Amino acid sequence: MPSVHFLPDGVTAEVPAGTLIHEAAVRAGLTRLELPCGGQGSCGLCLVEVSAAGREPVTVMACQTKVREDITVRLPEAQSLAMQVVGDSHFLLSEDTLPDRASLSPLFSYMPLTVPPASIEEHYSDWLRLERELTRAGAPAPFSADLALLGRLASVLREQDGRIAVALQESDAGTRVAEVFAGHAAPRAFGLAIDIGTTTVAVQLVDLDGGAVIDTTTSYNLQIRRGADIISRIDYARTAERQQELRALVLETINGLVGELTGGHGIAGDAIRAAFIAGNTTMIHLLLGLEPRYIREAPYVPTVNPVPSLDAESVGLSIHPRAAVSFAPGVGSYVGGDITSGLLTTDFLTNHDDVFLFMDIGTNGEIVIGNADWMVACACSAGPAFEGSGIKCGMRASRGAIEQVEIGRDLAGIRYKVVGGSKPAGICGSGLISLLGELFLRGLVDQAGRFNLESGSPRLVETEQGRVFVIERGENTLSGEDLVITEADIENLVRTKGAIYAACSLILENVGLEWNAISRVYIAGGFGRYINVSDAVLIGMLPDLAPARFRYIGNSALTGAYIALLSRERRAKLGNIAAKMTYVDLSSDPRYMDSYVKALFLPHTDMNLFPTVTRRLESTRNTG
Amino acid sequence: MPSVHFLPDGVTAEVPAGTLIHEAAVRAGLTRLELPCGGQGSCGLCLVEVSAAGREPVTVMACQTKVREDITVRLPEAQSLAMQVVGDSHFLLSEDTLPDRASLSPLFSYMPLTVPPASIEEHYSDWLRLERELTRAGAPAPFSADLALLGRLASVLREQDGRIAVALQESDAGTRVAEVFAGHAAPRAFGLAIDIGTTTVAVQLVDLDGGAVIDTTTSYNLQIRRGADIISRIDYARTAERQQELRALVLETINGLVGELTGGHGIAGDAIRAAFIAGNTTMIHLLLGLEPRYIREAPYVPTVNPVPSLDAESVGLSIHPRAAVSFAPGVGSYVGGDITSGLLTTDFLTNHDDVFLFMDIGTNGEIVIGNADWMVACACSAGPAFEGSGIKCGMRASRGAIEQVEIGRDLAGIRYKVVGGSKPAGICGSGLISLLGELFLRGLVDQAGRFNLESGSPRLVETEQGRVFVIERGENTLSGEDLVITEADIENLVRTKGAIYAACSLILENVGLEWNAISRVYIAGGFGRYINVSDAVLIGMLPDLAPARFRYIGNSALTGAYIALLSRERRAKLGNIAAKMTYVDLSSDPRYMDSYVKALFLPHTDMNLFPTVTRRLESTRNTG
Repeated sequence: MPSVHFLPDGVTAEVPAGTLIHEAAVRAGLTRLELPCGGQGSCGLCLVEVSAAGREPVTVMACQTKVREDITVRLPEAQSLAMQVVGDSHFLLSEDTLPDRASLSPLFSYMPLTVPPASIEEHYSDWLRLERELTRAGAPAPFSADLALLGRLASVLREQDGRIAVALQESDAGTRVAEVFAGHAAPRAFGLAIDIGTTTVAVQLVDLDGGAVIDTTTSYNLQIRRGADIISRIDYARTAERQQELRALVLETINGLVGELTGGHGIAGDAIRAAFIAGNTTMIHLLLGLEPRYIREAPYVPTVNPVPSLDAESVGLSIHPRAAVSFAPGVGSYVGGDITSGLLTTDFLTNHDDVFLFMDIGTNGEIVIGNADWMVACACSAGPAFEGSGIKCGMRASRGAIEQVEIGRDLAGIRYKVVGGSKPAGICGSGLISLLGELFLRGLVDQAGRFNLESGSPRLVETEQGRVFVIERGENTLSGEDLVITEADIENLVRTKGAIYAACSLILENVGLEWNAISRVYIAGGFGRYINVSDAVLIGMLPDLAPARFRYIGNSALTGAYIALLSRERRAKLGNIAAKMTYVDLSSDPRYMDSYVKALFLPHTDMNLFPTVTRRLESTRNTG
Repeated sequence: MPSVHFLPDGVTAEVPAGTLIHEAAVRAGLTRLELPCGGQGSCGLCLVEVSAAGREPVTVMACQTKVREDITVRLPEAQSLAMQVVGDSHFLLSEDTLPDRASLSPLFSYMPLTVPPASIEEHYSDWLRLERELTRAGAPAPFSADLALLGRLASVLREQDGRIAVALQESDAGTRVAEVFAGHAAPRAFGLAIDIGTTTVAVQLVDLDGGAVIDTTTSYNLQIRRGADIISRIDYARTAERQQELRALVLETINGLVGELTGGHGIAGDAIRAAFIAGNTTMIHLLLGLEPRYIREAPYVPTVNPVPSLDAESVGLSIHPRAAVSFAPGVGSYVGGDITSGLLTTDFLTNHDDVFLFMDIGTNGEIVIGNADWMVACACSAGPAFEGSGIKCGMRASRGAIEQVEIGRDLAGIRYKVVGGSKPAGICGSGLISLLGELFLRGLVDQAGRFNLESGSPRLVETEQGRVFVIERGENTLSGEDLVITEADIENLVRTKGAIYAACSLILENVGLEWNAISRVYIAGGFGRYINVSDAVLIGMLPDLAPARFRYIGNSALTGAYIALLSRERRAKLGNIAAKMTYVDLSSDPRYMDSYVKALFLPHTDMNLFPTVTRRLESTRNTG
């Protein structure tokens, strides 16, 4: 019997001659090679690379090709489903970006110290001697402590010959000594990195000793029921009662996520001693119960920006009541702490030579161009489509979300990847980009974003809601209902990507640069774990640059909050951003509307801007 | 009828020839000329200066001298009863010492500000614009505020075109914005200056707008029931329960005084927004419930020194719970904040040329020598005699206390001055110094401090408690009991003054200076409103220097606390003292005991050190 050696798994199966490669893989225990068209050879989604002794490798369909001799078959890797994986969430970020784990300086930390006893010659008080050791250990002065701690200090210092562990909590002014124990051992302490988005809230539980991420969880911001975007939230929050209502809603969201994390990991809420929060200026005001109206009334000033450090009790977080809560500083009403925090994950704050572009695509899109010496920022109203909100089957990038899609050349076969590997429940941002790209590439959607009924795809059907493309039938979804994308969804997505592209073009024009001057484009947003840059270029959301220039950095606001939670030096960097950044109000620029309208096509009215897309479309439609 | 013109009152009376000068004064409405001997001409306490046209002025007894012609009579002034008034409590201090009232910077203050609105070009947040105005107004950064205040900020700023009043509270690190009002008007705010002595606690109520002293009140420290001096208090405070008991006792003392002040002046406790506390290191530890034992165990280190700023609630003061409570810094276990605070009332911190001596005589005596460049301090265990404690009829310098005494040359007549002008209730520190000086001057007490029974004074009597000198009979006292001084009292006073003189001598020797090198001797302590320096020299408590070199500065710890409460610049000066001061431990100096024993005589075993006393004794006893 011929043997089939599967790569990259390194598994070999002996099968009767004539067995389909697909069957051979299943016999070898490799079941990931799906056949969306049922093995009809129509969708072309089961391509594998086959090599035999003395011959060139060939690419064949596994459902149509039989084994005749000893061969080696290279299967697609699970993850290689995404054609272009450009990044991952921050636990996969490069070590350069993350703070050095050997010398973390979190907002809250336990520090072992040895405080030498006083002598007749040098009889400084217990507290002064402790302060001296804290200074030597690099903690920022001035130091403070409450009376209860001072009351225990004398005996704790003498219990184990001056060996103590102190809990240090950073504040706007110096360091608070929050606890003191005899001996060098200390309990575990945890921190939270929190990103409060207009649509999505993400909370990450971090072990403050070592900086390991224990878990991350997200949910929609419960404030959505009082308005989908910032403007409608500000409008809603006209009265003090409503400000309190919105505050309660976001606190319910955050504390629910915190409870999930602590419950899931058997950690007491009181063990969480610090939180670093990133969010746009309005979200932070609503969290703190501050009147937001002046953010949207000229001259557009927030009440606080940057936000002073607070304690968890006054903020309303269900963690240790005296936990330190710090906020990423905003630059103005429309460049919030989510952006400054996100920049922490890039080379923006360290590189003086190259020019970078940073795009954070949430409900509001914010764009920053520059480097460590100068930064120009602008905002565009993107809408929450890429967060799955306002899209019929849209969802956050959580378990059950389709995050990647391929459509077969038969326009019927489909292959998708679901977060968590379950049946699909909906489709998240990266899935939507991927799906729209595939629909356009396969000719199922035209340049104007309308379904092409002549394409003949069995998945394009007319329903009560108009034309839809059926991604998955109800029998295979978690809800039991068909998973579809509507023409209205596509219109929504096109408007969103158009707003982003138009803003990027205009800010480049403002600083007098061409796309080619940009060394790297950072794409941030809670799309999912991966974003397919080729697809994003295909739909004209991103410019047509070499794929290597793009870097997807996921929810960079959350990653930045994680970094800031752990590193004093990065917190200091954050504090310096405001001085370097200039904000440009695109909405008052008469060229904006023109630029926007041109971008309301797939990929753009001016196809000369997208040469590789033109080539790809030609090659796909010719070889279909 | 001859006319009598009385000076300094400027009153004239016409009286029949042959009228006694004393009677003439009474007719003129001047009744202050008392006749302790009943007009017998025996006590000599009614001396007046008489001048007539063409003749030299003569001094005569008003009870024995008749009016024959037109004369001018100079009566003693009420206050000139004290032969040498060298100072007064701090409301009479020179304006140089007190902070400039036009530019006070109290621990807590209301400040009117106008915060200009933002503009499109300069759209700083409300809080940043407020911070900018605070910085311009000279308030120390960083600034902080709680969330409730930030929540009101936006609307308050816009209510009266940016005109606001802010309540500013100083802390160890910058300034807390405690309140914000629309408009420039603000409520009244009060502060406390507090001196916590081992024996006596003094609390002063101050109007923080303008710095006026509203009232001052004192009482014994209720901790006295657990030990008269520092060592016995520390010994008592062995357990946590007892530390809490001592804490409760001093808080009861302070809060009782605060209640007296607020009740007496119709002020709400909540209107008191700041307190500045001076006290020795042990008293401060006991106030804060801190274990004091390490203060008296080698190497003698306190838990906190200086003490960080706290709020009233955590300290336990019955004033506004978030009132700022600051403490005068100590230098070591035995030079507390009462001393550094007291130095604020002197030229010590500003004069670089002269050399000063500062003596604070409370239960512990502390002595500092030096100037703005260098300071050497020592402590001596004086005991609470001059605070009226441990003296049979001793009392604090409060209403009913005899504060000045004169004994007639008949050794029977006596004249005294009572605080508040009532019947006497006891005798305070200045009264005791005055009394002991008079007893010694009149030969009623010998150099060894024993009563001279041969003197023949009817006031020297034998009682169950041994020999006593009767100051006033029970029918004229508030208690109805005789007011006496016992031989044991005198022994106590002699030990106290001996300890002080011995310490002063030794510290001078230590720095290689003679008494004459001292430009000024500051005498601090709660003796009373006045201290008679001549009497203090007479008993050998003070060195025999020209009276002009002495300055009695009263309760300088309290005065210093008052100054520090009102002036940031003086608070900063206080903070710098520790770096300049060297502490010398006299108790380990073998020369101390010798020096002390020599000082256990009136005025001293070496009469060559007291030449003016020798002359005075001779002149009094010859002419007596």
